[in-house]
Amino acid sequence: MPTLPYDKTEIEMLIRAALPREEGLQRTVIRAMREAVENGGKRIRPILLFETCRCFAARRGETGWKEEAAPFLAALEMIHSFSLVHDDLPCMDNDTLRRGKPTTWYVYGEAMGTLAGDGLVLEALTVAGRAVGQSRHPERAARALAILGEKSGVGGMLGGQSVDVEKTGEHLDATTLDFIYRLKTGALLEAAFMMGAALGGASEAEISCAEQIGRAVGLAFQIQDDILDETATEAELGKPLHSDEKNQKTTYVSLFGLEAAREAVRQQSEAAEQRLREFPGETETLAALIAYLTDRRF
Amino acid sequence: MPTLPYDKTEIEMLIRAALPREEGLQRTVIRAMREAVENGGKRIRPILLFETCRCFAARRGETGWKEEAAPFLAALEMIHSFSLVHDDLPCMDNDTLRRGKPTTWYVYGEAMGTLAGDGLVLEALTVAGRAVGQSRHPERAARALAILGEKSGVGGMLGGQSVDVEKTGEHLDATTLDFIYRLKTGALLEAAFMMGAALGGASEAEISCAEQIGRAVGLAFQIQDDILDETATEAELGKPLHSDEKNQKTTYVSLFGLEAAREAVRQQSEAAEQRLREFPGETETLAALIAYLTDRRF
Repeated sequence: MPTLPYDKTEIEMLIRAALPREEGLQRTVIRAMREAVENGGKRIRPILLFETCRCFAARRGETGWKEEAAPFLAALEMIHSFSLVHDDLPCMDNDTLRRGKPTTWYVYGEAMGTLAGDGLVLEALTVAGRAVGQSRHPERAARALAILGEKSGVGGMLGGQSVDVEKTGEHLDATTLDFIYRLKTGALLEAAFMMGAALGGASEAEISCAEQIGRAVGLAFQIQDDILDETATEAELGKPLHSDEKNQKTTYVSLFGLEAAREAVRQQSEAAEQRLREFPGETETLAALIAYLTDRRF
Repeated sequence: MPTLPYDKTEIEMLIRAALPREEGLQRTVIRAMREAVENGGKRIRPILLFETCRCFAARRGETGWKEEAAPFLAALEMIHSFSLVHDDLPCMDNDTLRRGKPTTWYVYGEAMGTLAGDGLVLEALTVAGRAVGQSRHPERAARALAILGEKSGVGGMLGGQSVDVEKTGEHLDATTLDFIYRLKTGALLEAAFMMGAALGGASEAEISCAEQIGRAVGLAFQIQDDILDETATEAELGKPLHSDEKNQKTTYVSLFGLEAAREAVRQQSEAAEQRLREFPGETETLAALIAYLTDRRF
């Protein structure tokens, strides 16, 4: 399994610092929230936001961009964590383990698990809301906040998740599968690139370019996941093989076959790399991250 | 049962206009969200926000305050609706009826009920986030957004709810009961007054005064609710009597007795009315609303 081509120490620190402190009568829900976020995770989305912001800020030699990005990368990761906490609930996927550890609801009960997820969304709103008020570029921060909402809600991740839930057990056509991949997996990756661009002072055209990159990366990542479920060994994957087949899930591979799936990953990866050239500044780090995400051999 | 001393036609319209349109593959979750918000409700919080904003905006003869308040009153009502949708879930109160209609999860299933609640929070974030970007007073809008987050999350409503859930079935002491009342019931009322003030251009001292009013109204409202559960007839109340006693819930009345409870309502109502005099402009409408909320004979 290749390791993430990135030292995420600084990102981890920024995320932790943004989480509420475990104190007061409500400390149980806060502990559940903190554990859900602190429980591993590759921090892909915050890293992409941070590095995209770095590229754009460098163009005008701006300093202080880390302080601008910090609350937003934390808010984005909180939204991602919230979605995992609620996905694991008994009424959703009914999972008791995530990254080898007991899931939030399994430790704290279903009611507290639901509340911990809710608490993470509301904390994201709080952290990002405060950040807009304190920003040196409030119009950029407001744009980043609007992107976060649009890509998380019914027009983004949650919209995709709701269709996935509604169609459980049904055979999906290509349009529906594409919709679910684009929204459920892709939307928060789009948000990462777009928010980073917005906070670094990108134009609307550049934010739109960032969106295209996120979309391509999201699709390539998800289709690669389908391929690996079909072809990897259990040891390589670190989880049971053929889980999609067993769950009778429609995947890109089941719809179009392995070869077309591999070709789609190639096309989307290339599209992402192509458009990345439109970003200003040093894009090597982002290029390496994109290659890692779209060409995972694990 | 006295009727609300307010024509809420305009408020209803503003809330509806801010909700996402029922379209796309994800229309089921959007329908569930819309129904949860459109299903009655007195719209207390949006009305208080709107009228508080009116008072402060009038001081400088500002026009355009309705456009500034509209997205935020809708976002506040979405957060309130989300909390009801999740409170009704089987893992929380397991309620099948609210305001005489089947609850969201009972109609759409538990998974979609959870997602509809999540969708409402994320839509609140989206609507308020966009509003900051479009505001003529972005610093005021950013302040309102931060207040919304702080009063909804672990330091507000959700914090109170989490303690209520954790202590279910236990006898509560006065400190814990006060904490739950102040956060679970009070925090969104505080938010309504505070956000209205912030959007109307109030100073931090005035926003703090608005917070005090919200806190007093919230406490008076909740204690009055305890009193009515003890003393009203079933016909007056429109719901089963002595529900708190049956659920073995600690209430202000069970802790301190009826007379002390009545005295507390009187004190808190007076405190709210007193501090309301510090608001600029015409406060008759707000005074009538506060009297209605703290002296309900229903």
